[in-house]
Amino acid sequence: MGAASQARRLRPDADELRIDVFEKGTRTSYALCGIPYVVAGEIDAVDDLVVRTPEQFKTKQDIDVHVRHEVVGIDVAAGAVEVRDLATGQERREPYDQLLIATGAVPIRPPLPGIDRPEVHGVTTLDEGSALRQRVELLAGRRAVIVGGGYIGLEVAEALLAQGLEVVVVDVAPQVMRTLDPEVAAEVEQAMVRHGIDVRTGVEVTGFEPDAVHTVDGPLPADLIVLGIGVGPNAALAADAGLELGARGAVRVDDHQRASAAGVFAAGDCADSHHLVSGERVHVALGTVANRQARVAGINLAGGDAVFPGVLGSAVTRFVDLEIGRTGLTDGEAVAAGLEPVSTVVTSRTTAGYYPGGSPVTVKLVAERGTGRLLGGQIVGGAGAAKRIDAVAVALTAGMSASALRDTDFSYAPPLSPVWDPVQQAARRLADHVNG
Amino acid sequence: MGAASQARRLRPDADELRIDVFEKGTRTSYALCGIPYVVAGEIDAVDDLVVRTPEQFKTKQDIDVHVRHEVVGIDVAAGAVEVRDLATGQERREPYDQLLIATGAVPIRPPLPGIDRPEVHGVTTLDEGSALRQRVELLAGRRAVIVGGGYIGLEVAEALLAQGLEVVVVDVAPQVMRTLDPEVAAEVEQAMVRHGIDVRTGVEVTGFEPDAVHTVDGPLPADLIVLGIGVGPNAALAADAGLELGARGAVRVDDHQRASAAGVFAAGDCADSHHLVSGERVHVALGTVANRQARVAGINLAGGDAVFPGVLGSAVTRFVDLEIGRTGLTDGEAVAAGLEPVSTVVTSRTTAGYYPGGSPVTVKLVAERGTGRLLGGQIVGGAGAAKRIDAVAVALTAGMSASALRDTDFSYAPPLSPVWDPVQQAARRLADHVNG
Repeated sequence: MGAASQARRLRPDADELRIDVFEKGTRTSYALCGIPYVVAGEIDAVDDLVVRTPEQFKTKQDIDVHVRHEVVGIDVAAGAVEVRDLATGQERREPYDQLLIATGAVPIRPPLPGIDRPEVHGVTTLDEGSALRQRVELLAGRRAVIVGGGYIGLEVAEALLAQGLEVVVVDVAPQVMRTLDPEVAAEVEQAMVRHGIDVRTGVEVTGFEPDAVHTVDGPLPADLIVLGIGVGPNAALAADAGLELGARGAVRVDDHQRASAAGVFAAGDCADSHHLVSGERVHVALGTVANRQARVAGINLAGGDAVFPGVLGSAVTRFVDLEIGRTGLTDGEAVAAGLEPVSTVVTSRTTAGYYPGGSPVTVKLVAERGTGRLLGGQIVGGAGAAKRIDAVAVALTAGMSASALRDTDFSYAPPLSPVWDPVQQAARRLADHVNG
Repeated sequence: MGAASQARRLRPDADELRIDVFEKGTRTSYALCGIPYVVAGEIDAVDDLVVRTPEQFKTKQDIDVHVRHEVVGIDVAAGAVEVRDLATGQERREPYDQLLIATGAVPIRPPLPGIDRPEVHGVTTLDEGSALRQRVELLAGRRAVIVGGGYIGLEVAEALLAQGLEVVVVDVAPQVMRTLDPEVAAEVEQAMVRHGIDVRTGVEVTGFEPDAVHTVDGPLPADLIVLGIGVGPNAALAADAGLELGARGAVRVDDHQRASAAGVFAAGDCADSHHLVSGERVHVALGTVANRQARVAGINLAGGDAVFPGVLGSAVTRFVDLEIGRTGLTDGEAVAAGLEPVSTVVTSRTTAGYYPGGSPVTVKLVAERGTGRLLGGQIVGGAGAAKRIDAVAVALTAGMSASALRDTDFSYAPPLSPVWDPVQQAARRLADHVNG
């Protein structure tokens, strides 16, 4: 819908550019990222996450949204899609001049016994979010098992704590938050434990029953089961149409969001991206990336010439009173990308040391040995900590070195920062290590 | 003291590098920026703002601090300073191989009748801060007049409100916060008014009596008077020694913090700087700049080779529930620097729109017409708003365009940001205007 809106803004006349959207569900333009906060009761209902309805798209922008219409096939040679009207079951062929594939992501669901039971909740659609909220309201004091200790697992854990449940988080990896290096993730895990969560890392889940999650360490009794293992690209339709696939099976796109067939574009969680630091093709399923890719695709669909330069995997989240941010490559990712990283971890505060009410903050920065080029950053700390990662993201985008970030004129006031910002403290230390 | 510490770190042996510090006061290494929070009662006493005492410098770093010793003359030809022992009144000559001038700033005190009365409080030394705190504790419900509506005026106003005083802020300029463009400063003024402050802009102060501030509009009765007009470089000693002066009469330094005589360095509020965006020499009296200049001076004093690239004038502050940030050039400053600016102001939120508890945030970004090179940014908003300015500061340091900032992979989570960060929203809008 972001691409459709962007295209319409450039070509306001519907006679000049007709825009049809086929959506197998009933809603458009919604913020799935808000689901955990609906589950927590901070937001009343999933409908509050809908930014614009199909009717609003029609009346405000002359965009025709066909809800409950599933595209079941793409004929790239003929330039047409097969559409099934889910109300009638009838299929029809719709020709296109240009096509945008924006099919999003699908949750990862390993083929484990019982995983498709209705008691195993997902959080990847508004309907799933709504169902989980309703269940949770009846379960205060009961025990939930969340499978997966990444962003979604963490946010759902926070939500279930807020609703008074006991929470177990189980993850097959040796740490939570695999997008962080182990020593940074350890701080997140400590916070989870401090807030009463039973964290089981390095534990493989083997199956599900209505009242238990089976693991290699034995069963975990559960009044509620939530899956937060992550998502993969929903690219089956593109693959069936013969379009080239890229990173992790996502639709391979160029820097104009063009897929491998003429007139076909892809954007969002179904498409792959260029990683600005590693130079590799990656699949990053984040709303930020989807929105920016949508802007680029929309401009190009409207006949413009926009480029999507790439991604850093910048992300933040909050767990109760802890904020977590990351961008670029971790130490581990840098090594995997064939780079030689050098890194530093500093502990500082969100405020001046003498100012009351500040919180500890840990910053890890990673640079390339020798050149000092920044490769990535990770931040864990109290209120005000995580969004500091954006300064690192800008530095990565500009190809800055640790010393250039150290020398940057960061801002300061006692209630908001130490005189050397924590990010800058890390850059200062790292710059000293780059050649050491 | 920052330079002394940095130099000692590189040359740990005091036989190799002897470091003597002459300080006319009694304290070292203190955070003047914390004074308003002592006045507010958030911090107990000004002594809490002292980071390291003279004794600690001696025992931990073998740095000899001579307190109550005022340097009254510099003989750059001979390489010696004249030092007066304030306890005895005796003067002596101390030779040096290298000299760092770190005399800081002096408050601006226009020659108005009564300005030197004891009832007219300053906030530029710890002793003044201490005296103000003691007065304020007796004055709940009484009326204070603050002269000056900049950072210090604003922070002292917050402090006096917290102590239960009625507050009047008077400024000769047509707006508060002259480091912001008028439409952004207006939001600050609105917040001041909302919190009960009587803001008198465009009003010239003509004199002081113990119980009134005289203005061109008549007298303002005052139980307490505080001056927050700003500071200028304390460069009289350097000027008397024949050293070259730069912006606003500050000691002119090169990018190694070297003054115009061999072996003489200057750093901090007494020295000038290179502005990274305008390319002009400027005087920016901020703790951040002083600390970074001190690092560079310290390395060079120790025989190293460090460069101070320059400043952006990045600054943040907080007024009750409002955060304010700025970096680079305002529209007005860009015009004054001979640039042709184009700017945009967006209103957004600190959180996702649907997330409860977020605050409005206004972002103004300024770019160069045609090239799109970013020139500056200003932010006003609720908790979490102001430190977003650091991302803009990094972009300015890298010479980024508005479109590059728009395309940067900012981070997002509903409790911490909209999916397009407010800064990025402004960059997106501005990039569209750059050629328009």
